[in-house]
Amino acid sequence: MELATENHAFNTPEEAELEFYRAFETMDISAMMSVWHDQEYIECIHPMGARLKGFLPIRNSWWEIFQQAPLINFQILDQKIIQGTNLAVHIVNEKIIIRDQMEQPNQMIATNIFELTSKGWRMILHHASPNPQEEIEDEHFTIPQEHLH
Amino acid sequence: MELATENHAFNTPEEAELEFYRAFETMDISAMMSVWHDQEYIECIHPMGARLKGFLPIRNSWWEIFQQAPLINFQILDQKIIQGTNLAVHIVNEKIIIRDQMEQPNQMIATNIFELTSKGWRMILHHASPNPQEEIEDEHFTIPQEHLH
Repeated sequence: MELATENHAFNTPEEAELEFYRAFETMDISAMMSVWHDQEYIECIHPMGARLKGFLPIRNSWWEIFQQAPLINFQILDQKIIQGTNLAVHIVNEKIIIRDQMEQPNQMIATNIFELTSKGWRMILHHASPNPQEEIEDEHFTIPQEHLH
Repeated sequence: MELATENHAFNTPEEAELEFYRAFETMDISAMMSVWHDQEYIECIHPMGARLKGFLPIRNSWWEIFQQAPLINFQILDQKIIQGTNLAVHIVNEKIIIRDQMEQPNQMIATNIFELTSKGWRMILHHASPNPQEEIEDEHFTIPQEHLH
């Protein structure tokens, strides 16, 4: 199962991003790392976090998060896609719903960047920060796309 | 002078990024906006801020910052460049030194994204967040570059 996941090639940045959030929800470290490009230059900035650089430090951070985090569901809202030839930029609102709790969902902003590699589209940057806007933008589920190529 | 600035075409993302921080230091709104692509899909996320979308909201935010901010100098450290065909991703540490003050500098992380437009390279995203790392990385002024094309 792990091998199958790691061999999977994402045909689009959208597929890779879907798998990123699915892996986060299911806390599947193998699936999560199958989304990331296996290169030293990848970076991950968790909310209020420092720059984590390279595959192993990023893997370790997700491992720790998956050990500690409650079960959550994501709603990805207001997705902006800027599609280049071999890089793709996605800016999203992450509405994070903690399962079995009545708490107000957390809201984050994330910049997710994908690169077209020899193994399909892979994540090379996740930069997240708290979203100060309290309004939930459920109504606006538009997906504007800008294709540059 | 304003026209001259606005007609300037940046030949590289590095030139555009230098001008971005120079415009910030000199609080020159015209120079700042000459760096940005004049499109509705551009976004700017100031530290702890919401997503600002489009040229005018972004221009207004810089105008407000320039009205209120003290005079500052930037040191751009630990610059990571991922250079695509028509998009470029820069991840940097911003060391922000408030002039004439002995305070500890602020430290931010920024993801700056540039697009190759018909008018040269322009900024399309600035996503900044606080850098929790206190160590000042003056020693590591390396500029690793990844050229994908």
